[in-house]
Formats: sequence, C-alpha cells, structure tokens
Amino acid sequence: MPTSMVLPIKKVFSLVDSRITVEIKDEDRRFQGRLISVDEYLNIHLDETFELVGNERGRNLGTVVIRGNNILTISPVV
Amino acid sequence: MPTSMVLPIKKVFSLVDSRITVEIKDEDRRFQGRLISVDEYLNIHLDETFELVGNERGRNLGTVVIRGNNILTISPVV
Amino acid sequence: MPTSMVLPIKKVFSLVDSRITVEIKDEDRRFQGRLISVDEYLNIHLDETFELVGNERGRNLGTVVIRGNNILTISPVV
Amino acid sequence: MPTSMVLPIKKVFSLVDSRITVEIKDEDRRFQGRLISVDEYLNIHLDETFELVGNERGRNLGTVVIRGNNILTISPVV
Amino acid sequence: MPTSMVLPIKKVFSLVDSRITVEIKDEDRRFQGRLISVDEYLNIHLDETFELVGNERGRNLGTVVIRGNNILTISPVV
Amino acid sequence: MPTSMVLPIKKVFSLVDSRITVEIKDEDRRFQGRLISVDEYLNIHLDETFELVGNERGRNLGTVVIRGNNILTISPVV
Repeated sequence: MPTSMVLPIKKVFSLVDSRITVEIKDEDRRFQGRLISVDEYLNIHLDETFELVGNERGRNLGTVVIRGNNILTISPVV
Repeated sequence: MPTSMVLPIKKVFSLVDSRITVEIKDEDRRFQGRLISVDEYLNIHLDETFELVGNERGRNLGTVVIRGNNILTISPVV
Repeated sequence: MPTSMVLPIKKVFSLVDSRITVEIKDEDRRFQGRLISVDEYLNIHLDETFELVGNERGRNLGTVVIRGNNILTISPVV
Repeated sequence: MPTSMVLPIKKVFSLVDSRITVEIKDEDRRFQGRLISVDEYLNIHLDETFELVGNERGRNLGTVVIRGNNILTISPVV
Repeated sequence: MPTSMVLPIKKVFSLVDSRITVEIKDEDRRFQGRLISVDEYLNIHLDETFELVGNERGRNLGTVVIRGNNILTISPVV
Repeated sequence: MPTSMVLPIKKVFSLVDSRITVEIKDEDRRFQGRLISVDEYLNIHLDETFELVGNERGRNLGTVVIRGNNILTISPVV
C-alpha cells in the first residue's frame, strides 16, 4: 500500500462532528445527520438524523446506528 | 482513529436492557424488543420482541437472535 | 463490552439439540429443524429439517448446512 | 462453544468426494456436483456439476468454484 | 499463492490519482472520479466524482467514500 | 480440515493466465477474460475482458478488477 495515501476511512474520520449524507444500498432513501462516530467497518453513529427521500426531507430519526455493510456512499454535506 | 471518539458499537452497548427498534435491510418490517445482548458484529439478542409493519404492531416473536449483517439501523425507542 | 452480558451467539449455543426456526433474508421461506451445531459466523447445521412457507409445512430436507450470512433470525420453537 | 459440538463446516468436510446440492441465495437455481474441496468460508469446488432449475436437470457446468457468501444451503444428495 | 502474482488490490493501488469507473452491484448507476485512496477492503475515496447512468453523465457528487462490498468492478478510464 | 484437500482458492490460482468465466450474483451478465491475479477473497483481476449476456458476446471491457463477494462462480473456459 503506498505509504503516503490517506485511507478512505481516515477521510470519514475527518468528518466527525460535521453533517454527512449516507446513501443506502438499493434504497431510494438516504440519511443525513451529524457524524458522532465511525469504526473500521464504517459502522456509523449519527445524531440529529433525518431521512431524505429523493431530495425531499423525510422523517426525523434522531439517534441512529447504521451498519457499515449496508452503506453505499458517505459524503460531506456541502 | 480519534481516541476521544465513542465507537458506534459502544452506543449500542449502552442500550442493553432498554427497548430498541431494529430496521432490516430491504424489508418493510422492523423488530422492536428489549436488547439482551449485542456483539462486535452487531448480532442482536432481543426479548419481548414484536414486528412493526409500517407503524402497525405485528406478530409477537418473543426471543429472537438477529444476524448483524442484515441489520440496517438500530435506534433507541423514545 | 459489558462483561456480564451473555453474547447473542451463546444464546444460540444454548439451543443446540432443540428445535429452532431459521428465517432467511428476503425469502418467504423459513427452515425448522433440530440444531446440531453452530459456529461463530452463525453457520448452522440442522437435522430433521423441513421448510415452512408462510405457516404451511413444506418439503422435508433432512440434513442441511445453512450459511450464516444469509440468516436473518434464529428463534427457539416454543 | 460447547467442546463436544462438531462444527457445521466439519459436516461439510465429511461430504468431500460425495455428491452435494448447493442452493444459491435468491435464485431458483441449484448446483449439484461432486464436492472436491471446501474452505472455512464455505467456498466450494465442485466437479461433474450440473444445474437444477426447480427439479429439472439443466446445463452441465463441469468444474465450478462457488463463492461461499452466496450459498444458502449445502445438503448431501440422498 | 503464486509469489510472482501482482494482487488485484495492487492493480487498484496503481490507479491512485487517475480517473476510474466504479460499477455498483445491482445498479444501473456507475461512479466516475479521481481515485484518492483505497484500502484492503476496496473501500474507495473518490474526488471530482460524477454519476454515469447508462452512458449519460449524471449528477456531480464531488467527494465520495464508497464502501467496498457494494462495488462490483473497478476499471481505469481509458 | 482434511490435509490432503486442495482448497477451492488453489483451484482458482491454477487458472492464472488462462481464460475464465466469472458469473455475477443476481445478474444475467457474466465476464470472460484472462485471469491476471486473484487473492484470498476471490477478488479477481481480468484482462482482455468482455461481457457475456446470456450466450451473446457484449461490450469489451479490457482491464477490470471484480470484487470477490459479488462473484457467484468461477469456471475455466473449455
């Protein structure tokens, strides 16, 4: 592994405390929330979470733990 | 990994003995029950479990072990 | 991990030699059989197995090894 | 883990050189062939393999390596 | 493992800093972006990412981390 | 594990430099190409790859890395 490369997981660590969008595999639905923590499996703990269905804001979910293997993408909210 | 971060799994450990909702990947159905135990793979042992289909209470399931990889989200019942 | 917690897998170990129902991810079908053995991945060896389609008893399958990752839930037959 | 328990994988090892049926997750199709080898992930090497679509014999496939995670069940042909 | 073989992951490491196409399992959609980093699970960090729906360029996504297990293929853009 | 058994992965290693067919889970599509390398997760690096849709030759894909968990079967082209 090239030693100068910052791993994908480190990119996600850098987003702790900011708002992220989590896209779920095979679902129309995404989650948007504040990233509280993440581990090496990309399990994600979000707070102040709400659903996004297409571009519409859906239900408020509050505190949610999302299992990493069902996550397709993680992106910063810009 | 930032050392001050409380991992997602720790969040779930903190819910042992309280009621949680477990959302299953690609299913309309959720499980609600009392969290008896959880391991590092997010395998979950629930008691006093019932199904939720949409917002309707479904079948009583009693004791159930749910395999972690098929879990989408875990949330506290508030 | 709270040291007093009995892990989900231990719950399944306690069911060895008794009859269990194994629910498969994304399938209508469940398996019911006598639990011969289980490992840390929740791979399951059942004997005297039959299918359950909804609540109807289906085909007799005899001896079956089920791969853990495709299992949604494991429950004791009560 | 109960020390007297023979693990599910050992059950599959005992089937090496005999004919087995491998059921695939979410598919109508099964594979039947002679089990040449299997590893701890339940990756399977079959020889003299043919497909089974429902109960009808389908295409001859000869030598096939099947990745373990996509296998639902493994059973001896009786 | 043949010692002279360059592993698949090394092939992907060699694509760091160049543009790649990432095909997602069971989706029509692909991602095209500049590969910033990749780890042993094939988790991928892309920059300047856009979607490809069929052969049409879709939304601009900017920075995205894609979880490895949901990736079907990775190819260089030629 | 029977010590005389040649593991499934070794079977795949033996196919390096020859043409193989890779069947993808839940897809009609297969990949055919020359096997450049493979690792313990059955991640596959193919060259001179083309798609097979049913028995028809599809698009030329050139160099492709396929993630192992989405592979259903690997077979030699005979």
